[in-house]
Amino acid sequence: MKAAVLRNGTIQVDDIGDLPVLPGHVLIETIACGICGTDLHTRKYAHDFVEAARATGFSLFDFDPDADVILGHEFSGRIVEVGAGVERMLPDTAVVAHPVARRAGHVVALGYSNDLPGAFAQRLLVQAEGVLPIPPSVDPRLAALTEPIAVGLHAVDRSSAIRHGSSVVLGCGPVGLAVIAALKLRGVPLIVASDFSPTRRAHAATLGAHIVVDPSTEEPIAAFRSGGGRGPTTIFDAVGVPGMIDQAMITAPSRSEILVVGLCMRPDTFRPAIAINKELQFTFVLGWTPDEFSTSLRAIAEGTIDAAALITADVRLDGVAQAFDDLASPDHHIKILVRPNL
Amino acid sequence: MKAAVLRNGTIQVDDIGDLPVLPGHVLIETIACGICGTDLHTRKYAHDFVEAARATGFSLFDFDPDADVILGHEFSGRIVEVGAGVERMLPDTAVVAHPVARRAGHVVALGYSNDLPGAFAQRLLVQAEGVLPIPPSVDPRLAALTEPIAVGLHAVDRSSAIRHGSSVVLGCGPVGLAVIAALKLRGVPLIVASDFSPTRRAHAATLGAHIVVDPSTEEPIAAFRSGGGRGPTTIFDAVGVPGMIDQAMITAPSRSEILVVGLCMRPDTFRPAIAINKELQFTFVLGWTPDEFSTSLRAIAEGTIDAAALITADVRLDGVAQAFDDLASPDHHIKILVRPNL
Repeated sequence: MKAAVLRNGTIQVDDIGDLPVLPGHVLIETIACGICGTDLHTRKYAHDFVEAARATGFSLFDFDPDADVILGHEFSGRIVEVGAGVERMLPDTAVVAHPVARRAGHVVALGYSNDLPGAFAQRLLVQAEGVLPIPPSVDPRLAALTEPIAVGLHAVDRSSAIRHGSSVVLGCGPVGLAVIAALKLRGVPLIVASDFSPTRRAHAATLGAHIVVDPSTEEPIAAFRSGGGRGPTTIFDAVGVPGMIDQAMITAPSRSEILVVGLCMRPDTFRPAIAINKELQFTFVLGWTPDEFSTSLRAIAEGTIDAAALITADVRLDGVAQAFDDLASPDHHIKILVRPNL
Repeated sequence: MKAAVLRNGTIQVDDIGDLPVLPGHVLIETIACGICGTDLHTRKYAHDFVEAARATGFSLFDFDPDADVILGHEFSGRIVEVGAGVERMLPDTAVVAHPVARRAGHVVALGYSNDLPGAFAQRLLVQAEGVLPIPPSVDPRLAALTEPIAVGLHAVDRSSAIRHGSSVVLGCGPVGLAVIAALKLRGVPLIVASDFSPTRRAHAATLGAHIVVDPSTEEPIAAFRSGGGRGPTTIFDAVGVPGMIDQAMITAPSRSEILVVGLCMRPDTFRPAIAINKELQFTFVLGWTPDEFSTSLRAIAEGTIDAAALITADVRLDGVAQAFDDLASPDHHIKILVRPNL
């Protein structure tokens, strides 16, 4: 089968071997797989990414950054074959799945493994426990957004935004937009969103932001206040560049939470004295829980989250390298879907 | 009256004018006032301290660092005179008080003001609302510990330590020890305390730590685990030097909280990727609430917190400068009380 392989910082389409169907696993033909910001980071900073995983004691993201990796963990697909011991799953069912599998007794994070491919490949192997059928009324291509929207739900559910009754989202890339969609789903009454890009601001409004600001002309917390925001709030840092936390601290209301959901691979510096004076809280989040993953699929299926609004292009495997370059310029794209079998 | 005046980074005893008794205020003769780590920071980094306050939009700690300041905010005293409109307070009553007053319509933090002296002076003026009588059975000298112990209570009550059922306290100076005393008061079942100083470790054990470790020979989280600690915990950073947060992150269990209670005036650097991988939370705290202040006095009065265990020396006003120098070497002292009227 064919895959887009990350090899020494470049992405190349290559033929790779077929996958054996392991017991307890399901072989899936990929329908669509989103390109995630972490994929972009991994192409650029694979060594730093693995180093941070090792410093954390994380076996899950520990792979050889000098060997081939097939990225892709935001996917939908169709069951091709089920392994021994897998019940109640039939070939040809459209599904999403937690991007994990097992090999040699270890849990492998698909997309961050040298052993098993992620979904920028025509097929992939997943653990049966994490497989969820897509309701027949739902376009499986949209269901590929289950994972990134679950990331937004997780960020909101781990935050104090519901208790605060307000939120400020810095950065309206795919993660910031997923957070906005989740804030709307959870009924947070004030959602302020900030991004330099007019395209992204328009998406933010579509997905549920009540106030959108261009930070080059208006300070987001000032917009929060003129929009009726009072007291502590949750500020979502969905930008993921060093300095954002310190910058957000300056205007943050006392006792606010800064929730960091944008991955930042480089060390970051901030002034603790300001955080102390304001009694701030920084919350760092990763991934989602199985419940949040299911809730995300349900919200897409029921249309309470408009997944289609996040998708700006579809590419074939031979378009992945270009898509990675395109995503570096934030004005044109939100989520690009890779369609390995088109 | 006499006071120990902070003047251009030095502390000198000087005669200052008498204080007019304002309406709604109470004039107090100082019995004892503890020297706080923030006092040491302010002597050394007054400009940085004020700059952080201004960056926060804090009028409370905004003073002219080039003009005279009389520090001291952890005090007990005896009422000398009450201002107009103050009811139910009689001269000669032993009291503690929130270290605040009003001047020209503004709240002034005593100890961080050019206008009104803190308690390294023979007398000070406080707002009547914050005055609490010391029960007659209690040594008023011990009651001077009300404020720093309230800081420990606040840190614990703002933390997840009670929910986690465990804690690790890094640094057993006065703040770390107040945290340990508060953790014990709140019944937290596992308190691990770490300090390089054997004297401080002994104090930590006296005040309630179940396990004390020397971090030069044993890693505190390893000690937490061998002491039965499991899952997320609250790690109190009561050290307040740059690098502590990043260091604590490395061994912190996933989903732990790092609660920063040690004041750090310099910028700090950490690796967000590790905080994200572990889904850590950083909580920054300052001061106390009026309830916590009252709870602290009650705990001292009832003996549920052993305030005497924190006091290692008493000095007169002419000993304040030397006491500041002595406190820089952490092995000998915990809390030094200034006794301006001895």
